[in-house]
Amino acid sequence: MALEVFHKDETLQMRRKLIGQSCRLFFSRDPVKIVRARGQYLYDENGMQYLDCISNVQHVGHCHPSLTQAAAAQMDLLNSNTRFLHDNIVLYADRLAATLPKKLCVFYFVNSGSEANDLALRLARQYTRHHDVVVLDHAYHGHLISLIDISPYKFRKLEGQKEWAPLPDTYHGIYREDHPDPGQAYADTVKSLIDEAHKKGCKISSFFAESLPSVGGQIIFPTGYCKRVAEYVREAGGVYVADEIQTGFGRVGSHFWAFQLQGEDFCPDIVTMGKPIGNGHPIACVATTEEIAAAFTANGVEYFNTFGGNPVSCAIGLAVLDVIEKEDLRGNAVRVGGHLKQLLLQLQTKHPLIGDVRGVGLFIGMELVKDRASRKPATEEAAHLVRRLKEERIVMSTDGPWDSVIKFKPPMCFSIEDAERVCTCIDQILRGCYTSSPSSIPAVSAGLQGSISRNT
Amino acid sequence: MALEVFHKDETLQMRRKLIGQSCRLFFSRDPVKIVRARGQYLYDENGMQYLDCISNVQHVGHCHPSLTQAAAAQMDLLNSNTRFLHDNIVLYADRLAATLPKKLCVFYFVNSGSEANDLALRLARQYTRHHDVVVLDHAYHGHLISLIDISPYKFRKLEGQKEWAPLPDTYHGIYREDHPDPGQAYADTVKSLIDEAHKKGCKISSFFAESLPSVGGQIIFPTGYCKRVAEYVREAGGVYVADEIQTGFGRVGSHFWAFQLQGEDFCPDIVTMGKPIGNGHPIACVATTEEIAAAFTANGVEYFNTFGGNPVSCAIGLAVLDVIEKEDLRGNAVRVGGHLKQLLLQLQTKHPLIGDVRGVGLFIGMELVKDRASRKPATEEAAHLVRRLKEERIVMSTDGPWDSVIKFKPPMCFSIEDAERVCTCIDQILRGCYTSSPSSIPAVSAGLQGSISRNT
Repeated sequence: MALEVFHKDETLQMRRKLIGQSCRLFFSRDPVKIVRARGQYLYDENGMQYLDCISNVQHVGHCHPSLTQAAAAQMDLLNSNTRFLHDNIVLYADRLAATLPKKLCVFYFVNSGSEANDLALRLARQYTRHHDVVVLDHAYHGHLISLIDISPYKFRKLEGQKEWAPLPDTYHGIYREDHPDPGQAYADTVKSLIDEAHKKGCKISSFFAESLPSVGGQIIFPTGYCKRVAEYVREAGGVYVADEIQTGFGRVGSHFWAFQLQGEDFCPDIVTMGKPIGNGHPIACVATTEEIAAAFTANGVEYFNTFGGNPVSCAIGLAVLDVIEKEDLRGNAVRVGGHLKQLLLQLQTKHPLIGDVRGVGLFIGMELVKDRASRKPATEEAAHLVRRLKEERIVMSTDGPWDSVIKFKPPMCFSIEDAERVCTCIDQILRGCYTSSPSSIPAVSAGLQGSISRNT
Repeated sequence: MALEVFHKDETLQMRRKLIGQSCRLFFSRDPVKIVRARGQYLYDENGMQYLDCISNVQHVGHCHPSLTQAAAAQMDLLNSNTRFLHDNIVLYADRLAATLPKKLCVFYFVNSGSEANDLALRLARQYTRHHDVVVLDHAYHGHLISLIDISPYKFRKLEGQKEWAPLPDTYHGIYREDHPDPGQAYADTVKSLIDEAHKKGCKISSFFAESLPSVGGQIIFPTGYCKRVAEYVREAGGVYVADEIQTGFGRVGSHFWAFQLQGEDFCPDIVTMGKPIGNGHPIACVATTEEIAAAFTANGVEYFNTFGGNPVSCAIGLAVLDVIEKEDLRGNAVRVGGHLKQLLLQLQTKHPLIGDVRGVGLFIGMELVKDRASRKPATEEAAHLVRRLKEERIVMSTDGPWDSVIKFKPPMCFSIEDAERVCTCIDQILRGCYTSSPSSIPAVSAGLQGSISRNT
């Protein structure tokens, strides 16, 4: 493919005409056209390099040669569907099984995280014979019709009044870091919601939650939360669905799955996987127990997913697992993520705007606040910081209920130097930024811009 | 990738353990392990060649080198998401637009036909502000929760009593080939269903139909049907959704889209595309009008599909369009499909078991009946024929409400010789098959088996 066919203006014009405008662009006022990428670096049509802090889908780095090779080799040999026997799907399921608790040993392959969550919902409902779902406030589980109800993050305005369990956010939530046992306290809010639901005649099929709520603002669950919630949900006849679409495949470093941060005595009933699983190739997966799978089989209806689990998708999935191991990307997440968090905590001591720094591995959030006493979200300042970082050729974005959390979810090959470069830039941008007006945030000095150019 | 990692028995054993048993295998008693493929030929682990009559997903032929090359080149350069500007998505949308009526000019890219139909349903509901959907009996529109209600083919047993519009099947249906205007008559059944729905307070958002019902039994709509249905549906405030997931991209030969068989005065409001679009790569698409897209944008919610419309998927989609054109696969569908249909019609004159032969291009159905007067479906005979064809190394399958329709949906590079080989085999297998007992169908003679071996 040529790097560029149309001039950027023409691409933008065609895009506005041909692609539904619900599909939005980053930096909509001045979108970026990216024509090539490698590792953690993106290049625009003029050859400008950007450091990518947000592409968690390109998990092992953009355009990893091992993946291209694995995909091309399998594409040249065979792509078919799961109605034919093939080794790749069983090899791949076996490899994934080795990363999970023994109980999660049956797999379904699909094409997207949304398809995975939709299937998880079907499995849960079929197994429990219950319909209703408990989800966290600000959650996002996908774009499909079935997931709109369980994704208040995007669809709150469409769906009117429903009730969601409070996000167990110990910085902004009802129980904070000074609470003696926020895990128990937040789990009890789920219990109360279930009790209320029962009074209305609802029957709980499942509790869905990301193992680390991502669009909710890079939240780390308090200790014990998941285990207690799972107990309450199972008492109600439901199952626990861990959405690992953003957080799986070693992003947290110390563990392969983020739910494992909650200890060995917690195991979900269903795990959904997506985004990083194929490094950008459309593949996703649902893992569950023999009992739940058996209940789904017992309905007598075939589950056929045309592309799901095909030999090419599985070859790519296998290659991703290989790269994570060979390049010790979990170790890198621990080292670089730890260093990045330390640097951000140092910045916090200098900049009152930084209210909170939280995260594990290469899943880190830095929350900006107007002042630390009120913890009022500094939404405009966060937007300004992202815009200014873009000028410094660093691609970053915000999340959380007030878009006040700067989120780091970079490709897992992110380096110590990358972490230092970002923090240096943030420091420079935030200097003099102790008033609440974003316009008062000064530009980075010419000297620093020069040093960034040399780094790229 | 190695051709085979495990012995076939071990693959099967692992598959039974690791993959949900709702995911079924072809020829479940003795499944086929396919390890490589090229064009219209599949090869098992022993190097045995099978002629593939059913893989419509591998539209331009299995493992086409142009597609592998396009995929690898783009994978090496960039894979990202639609929040960054890129030329491939607009190039691809522009190329698809050129195949469609002008009114269908806005595109959304997704990862599967099911995702496309789910989004089509969201678009229809958002635009019309109505909820209910009219679908045909025996229809299948996907595996997602939202599509279960509109897929009686698979989900009839789950969903209890609902009402569907009768399949406009002029061989088995309520109006047959001797009716003066079956198109109008069947369209009027949709009108009646809408009137009934209105009486119950339902509001029609859409009519969903495959442009040629496929799992319904390779049905060809009678002339005028779609145009009249569209009028009735629009009068009720709904939109017409043409599901081209099985039938698009030139399979019918004379036209690029099967709905175009209904004449230039018929245009759907939404078209969904899938299966052949990426020759097996997970990509799918929704095309619609500016008005419907604008209503969807107006709800203020971003539509973001993580993998949908990425540069690699679009590069593959573009390469598929190129191959269809360069290799004149539509011309091939006309020539080979026409010849195949003629051969099957000749067989019909010899074999009373063949009740009907219908189809266009390389979308052909041959319906087996116990006797031509009653048209009672010959289900066991059809299953037996498929099993015997497998022994002759021809992969075929059945469809239709009674699994009595032998369906041809081969890769579009299917040749005149392939068509002749299949028909020779069918002729041999059906010889002496004039009683209703499948066990009386004789084996193909050793001599013919020899000649088939030489052909392969």
